[in-house]
Amino acid sequence: IYNQEDVQLEGLLNEVHYADVAEIINELAAEEATYLIKLLDSDKTSDVLTEVDDDLREAILGNLSSKEIAEELEELDTDDAVDIIAELSEERQQEVISNIEDEEHKEEIKELLKYAEDTAGGLMAKELVKVYDTWTVAGCLRRIRGQAEEVTRVHSVYVVNKQDELVGRLSLKDLIVAKNEKKIADIYISNVDYVNVEDNVEDVAKVMSKYDLEAIPVVDNSKTLLGRITIDDIVDVLKEEADKDYQLAAGITQDVEADDSIIELTRARLPWLFLGLVGGVGAFLIMEGFQDTFNKYAVLFFFTPLIAAMAGNVGVQSSAIIVQGLANDDVKGSINRRLIKEMLLAALNGTILALFLFFFVWVTKGDVNTAFAISASLVVVIIVAGLIGTFVPLFLNKQGIDPAIATGPFITTSNDIFGILIYFWIAKMVLGI
Amino acid sequence: IYNQEDVQLEGLLNEVHYADVAEIINELAAEEATYLIKLLDSDKTSDVLTEVDDDLREAILGNLSSKEIAEELEELDTDDAVDIIAELSEERQQEVISNIEDEEHKEEIKELLKYAEDTAGGLMAKELVKVYDTWTVAGCLRRIRGQAEEVTRVHSVYVVNKQDELVGRLSLKDLIVAKNEKKIADIYISNVDYVNVEDNVEDVAKVMSKYDLEAIPVVDNSKTLLGRITIDDIVDVLKEEADKDYQLAAGITQDVEADDSIIELTRARLPWLFLGLVGGVGAFLIMEGFQDTFNKYAVLFFFTPLIAAMAGNVGVQSSAIIVQGLANDDVKGSINRRLIKEMLLAALNGTILALFLFFFVWVTKGDVNTAFAISASLVVVIIVAGLIGTFVPLFLNKQGIDPAIATGPFITTSNDIFGILIYFWIAKMVLGI
Repeated sequence: IYNQEDVQLEGLLNEVHYADVAEIINELAAEEATYLIKLLDSDKTSDVLTEVDDDLREAILGNLSSKEIAEELEELDTDDAVDIIAELSEERQQEVISNIEDEEHKEEIKELLKYAEDTAGGLMAKELVKVYDTWTVAGCLRRIRGQAEEVTRVHSVYVVNKQDELVGRLSLKDLIVAKNEKKIADIYISNVDYVNVEDNVEDVAKVMSKYDLEAIPVVDNSKTLLGRITIDDIVDVLKEEADKDYQLAAGITQDVEADDSIIELTRARLPWLFLGLVGGVGAFLIMEGFQDTFNKYAVLFFFTPLIAAMAGNVGVQSSAIIVQGLANDDVKGSINRRLIKEMLLAALNGTILALFLFFFVWVTKGDVNTAFAISASLVVVIIVAGLIGTFVPLFLNKQGIDPAIATGPFITTSNDIFGILIYFWIAKMVLGI
Repeated sequence: IYNQEDVQLEGLLNEVHYADVAEIINELAAEEATYLIKLLDSDKTSDVLTEVDDDLREAILGNLSSKEIAEELEELDTDDAVDIIAELSEERQQEVISNIEDEEHKEEIKELLKYAEDTAGGLMAKELVKVYDTWTVAGCLRRIRGQAEEVTRVHSVYVVNKQDELVGRLSLKDLIVAKNEKKIADIYISNVDYVNVEDNVEDVAKVMSKYDLEAIPVVDNSKTLLGRITIDDIVDVLKEEADKDYQLAAGITQDVEADDSIIELTRARLPWLFLGLVGGVGAFLIMEGFQDTFNKYAVLFFFTPLIAAMAGNVGVQSSAIIVQGLANDDVKGSINRRLIKEMLLAALNGTILALFLFFFVWVTKGDVNTAFAISASLVVVIIVAGLIGTFVPLFLNKQGIDPAIATGPFITTSNDIFGILIYFWIAKMVLGI
């Protein structure tokens, strides 16, 4: 397909949905991608740009002039335009902005650039349909026709008073059903959910998914209507959140994908592996400390991987449940009650597992004392691991630290060390050495 | 607040959003919850019921008569009504359905009950606004006003031909802007995304989030319009998916929450712990098999927890990246290329980590040979662990098995065993014993 057959190619690409074009472009090198991007209709190009992978977009933008970028931005809703422009260097941002011709669009983009990326302000768009409570239904419909030209999809019509303060909302349905001469003040719904421009995006996501909202207005501290956030942006936020938590649980910091370079992947993975190495050295020091036990009961040492694995698994399980509960606002009430419950749970699971281990060691080694020493300490190790797994995320959360880092290597490593220490300590005690 | 002060309580609850009422009710026992539910306005009750926790809802429904349940269902959209009714016993379902007075609603619910929960049919609602392509804009607006009364939110207007086959869509905006005498056939957008009623919900979620859709029509094999799915249901699907994957990675099967009973939590956690136990026994057998090495190089045994931990961590990292890539459709191309990349990555990370370990062992033990043996095998163990972590999810995915089960205890346990085996084998070889 690739012999500069521009016309056919152009026709082909312009018929396809922009998300599909973006997928095709993701497979190409930066040069070819830029070539294709230039070939597309400009209203499609801009949408494609928002969907393309971050790294590739950076490369494509590098190949375009400030004027060309500005032209793309004119076609986009303000929120998407800001997302793209925020990736450019400070200097380049100024250049591109000065090239935007539509004055209103330019001002709005400048305003949105001020908000931090993880706040409601960083997610909102300026495009919305706003009516004053003093208007009539007929006048309102007329104005909406005007405003709606700019807005790709009309979700809700927001009602403001003379001071531009949000007072309520109108659904398009209500507007269509209402009589023409009625005043907006008589038909609007005053019960309207909204978020503050400085709210965290995760809180916005919680509110929107809790109340099943498709769009939510954003206001400042004096309740002035500033913009709106739509559910499709929230879907992206939720996905990123889930991906981040999943990666943290697996010991991967920074947002990486399978296709990223080896250097990027190393940067995301190596620190956690290093933590594991330090933990392993700790385990080594503990085992060396118990070296004198060794000559008598070498068999104890052969069970350390089992003890470490169980401590790690139990710790990850209990921390994952707490982390998820915290994310869903399900975990309330006293920490003590949680810890007692986890203790009972771990004691039950631990006892069942220890029974199996007891019979295995007894049968293969023929020594009841050793079997008892090993399985008794397994129970204690599992209980302690469960308590650490429950306590650490709750503690981090209280300190305002993202509890998601508590699952994965962090818990595994600390539980390995504690587990092995407790194991030798108890086994020695039981065996009387 | 709880001395049967019905009137105040009723007034209070009816003012609050149903999602908040559901949250309050979740904190109560079944008896009290049923009492409150009966107190509420019936249109609110039904919404509250859809938001309450599964277990509690079951208890509340058990306390209501079939007639009372039927009344709640009348107030709900068909998709939510079906979700509730599907939780009842076969017999109870029949009773409740026969008590629904609205004949159309009854038939629609019966139809939806036929579809499996994890298909587009199980997620869709029958409430939608449908117009024929032969209508005019004015006639269309009149009919929409009629149909829209039943539909809580109008997302899109779907255009069908005489055979009820989906041919396109109209946005409310286009309809408002268009002239009254125009034919629908002239203004509708024929480029409409849709899903088949038998499509898997995860695929529906992918399509809707890829194309940023807020609603999608559902059709059967002959393209007859059957219903629609809205983005808020998809948000729930995405959340459940993410929660499930996260739990699987932590070794928790079945959907459990922090507040579930100890028995339920044990059922979700114990099988994976048992797998860990079996793995630990495997590690024991391997170490015992190398017992003769033991007397000479006891220090080797003190590093097994380190080796096992590193093998586990690397395996979890690489499998998590692949599982996430598969879920996002990012992982394409040959398995071999992935494996080579992971090998290079693991070799790089392994070498860096091994260098630290080498110096540590050298300095503390003063024996270059031992230090070299341990760190050389660490590199190999990390490479093998990375390859297993990459290969297993890709393989499971090819076999049509959810690759998410490959992260967590499954990978950790198998990597522990392989890691320890390789470690002793290489260390023995290097040390010439």
